[in-house]
Amino acid sequence: MSNRMVRLVRRPVGMVKREDFKVEDGPVPEPGAGEFRVKSAYVSLDPAMRGWMSEGRSYVPPVPLGDVMRAYTVGTVDASNNPAFKPGDAVMGLFGVQRYAISKGERVVKVDPAQAPLERWVGGLGMPGWTAYFGLLDVGQPKAGETVVVSAASGAVGSVVGQIARIKGCRAVGIAGGPEKCRYVKDELGFDACVDYKAGNLAADLKAAAPSGIDVYFENVGGEILDTVLAQMNLRGRIPVCGLISAYNATELPAGPRNLRYVLTQRLRVQGLIVFDWADRTPEAIAQLGAWHKEGKLKIREDVRPGGIDAYPDVLNLLYTGGNQGKLVLKVA
Amino acid sequence: MSNRMVRLVRRPVGMVKREDFKVEDGPVPEPGAGEFRVKSAYVSLDPAMRGWMSEGRSYVPPVPLGDVMRAYTVGTVDASNNPAFKPGDAVMGLFGVQRYAISKGERVVKVDPAQAPLERWVGGLGMPGWTAYFGLLDVGQPKAGETVVVSAASGAVGSVVGQIARIKGCRAVGIAGGPEKCRYVKDELGFDACVDYKAGNLAADLKAAAPSGIDVYFENVGGEILDTVLAQMNLRGRIPVCGLISAYNATELPAGPRNLRYVLTQRLRVQGLIVFDWADRTPEAIAQLGAWHKEGKLKIREDVRPGGIDAYPDVLNLLYTGGNQGKLVLKVA
Repeated sequence: MSNRMVRLVRRPVGMVKREDFKVEDGPVPEPGAGEFRVKSAYVSLDPAMRGWMSEGRSYVPPVPLGDVMRAYTVGTVDASNNPAFKPGDAVMGLFGVQRYAISKGERVVKVDPAQAPLERWVGGLGMPGWTAYFGLLDVGQPKAGETVVVSAASGAVGSVVGQIARIKGCRAVGIAGGPEKCRYVKDELGFDACVDYKAGNLAADLKAAAPSGIDVYFENVGGEILDTVLAQMNLRGRIPVCGLISAYNATELPAGPRNLRYVLTQRLRVQGLIVFDWADRTPEAIAQLGAWHKEGKLKIREDVRPGGIDAYPDVLNLLYTGGNQGKLVLKVA
Repeated sequence: MSNRMVRLVRRPVGMVKREDFKVEDGPVPEPGAGEFRVKSAYVSLDPAMRGWMSEGRSYVPPVPLGDVMRAYTVGTVDASNNPAFKPGDAVMGLFGVQRYAISKGERVVKVDPAQAPLERWVGGLGMPGWTAYFGLLDVGQPKAGETVVVSAASGAVGSVVGQIARIKGCRAVGIAGGPEKCRYVKDELGFDACVDYKAGNLAADLKAAAPSGIDVYFENVGGEILDTVLAQMNLRGRIPVCGLISAYNATELPAGPRNLRYVLTQRLRVQGLIVFDWADRTPEAIAQLGAWHKEGKLKIREDVRPGGIDAYPDVLNLLYTGGNQGKLVLKVA
């Protein structure tokens, strides 16, 4: 019995490479006083991970070189000196890309495997779901009858954003890459429309899908898509900025939006969001998302990848090439 | 006695040219029922005018070709069939680049020439002042002790923004072009610091002037200055977007801000503003700005240019070349 770990050993340039990491075995750690040990079952792969590997000012410090790569995982407590976490408890937290982790319980959320399978607690019912929930409702503030557009619409966050928009009585329009993702977003998730940005006609296709203009644009990608959307925003539109994935692997800063004039003339509000800021309201999100899920109003899909811890670098890159279908998770062997 | 008028006859490309306008004389118009006539004394020259000349989606329709160019002016009622506006009343409104205008009183503000000279009512006590007042306080929401940075700091809006920031207990830092403007902003207007963006060291100079980071950035210019400021914004900073003058004469859309990532990671709020949106609160702004001005807390300077109506195109361009010192107005001959 050993602990398999993925350590970050080099700051990536562009897409991550296997050489940026060192995969190694170590002893299974023992919990000290007040601590417990988690055996992870699924590692969450999130676009933000690329940012965590880079130097520079951000919302969290970068992962130090040599450390186990930061990651949310979901798993089971298998040893404990902490009365609040008992062996067998299912938990989600920042346990890293490794099989076993030690925790004192900070920022750890207990999850209910009877309500939904473990992997869903790092997906639509976990951080990505909470991000969609608070980002759309608190920052985007959609009103019934408005049009909500979301990019990366088939992804972990975007798929939930559009479904909440529908629940709130809005027209939900997705932007996704390729006909299969668009079919999924429209036919399976129930969005009113989905525009394939790879079809090369984004401005006109978006205009057709959002004929009354756009009131809320939930931003996950940045780049040219943002520019196109800006030109179609309605008066006093809101743009929650949740992610800018198009730039995460850039080796030079890509050009920014040229259409900033619409922020001025349409009195738009563009606002960044990090889900940590709603930490005290996590139970609300869990309860509401869980209820919608149970009622069949919120569909959630994971893209579970095999290969164990060792596959981390290659599987992560799927996020940036658009290779995943739904929330990407790595099954721990 | 004739009415001298500047008509827009061609959509400008880049900076305006004399050939984009036709200057001509016409009969002095007579007010009809419910109307009054204004003899303008000063024409306000505002950066937004360039946008009013262009086709395209904006917050007001473009000036139709052949029409008298849209402009705020301040002047005196000299004939009236409207009991609310008597001959001799001083008024400010959208009277156009011409000597005489007819109005029914819509969006016309009576001003008090005893309180301040006429030209000040299209400057620091008029629309630019109201823009600074509502834009900084309502959109920027500065708190005492915070750092407020404003670009085009010696201009009609920027000069008022920084002084209100000081009044509210903030550190006020201006960005302006050239040592003379910076001296004026710092020594005469009382900003805590002013950074000369033309000195070629903006990032470091701004860091020195705003050592605790930037909480509110009042944006008048856009372009590279915005990018530099974005990288120095504090957590939950606010960016009221009042103008983007660096792009107004662009014949191709200039590149946008590359540093949009800070909007996300620092949870910034970027919000466009048009002063029309506070039309119902104009009296509040007039009263408060007037009080501060009287108490000596708010210094206002106009740059009054001679040449009459005919000089309009050349004088307007001073705004875009940075050739003015303070609020630019044209004295009607």
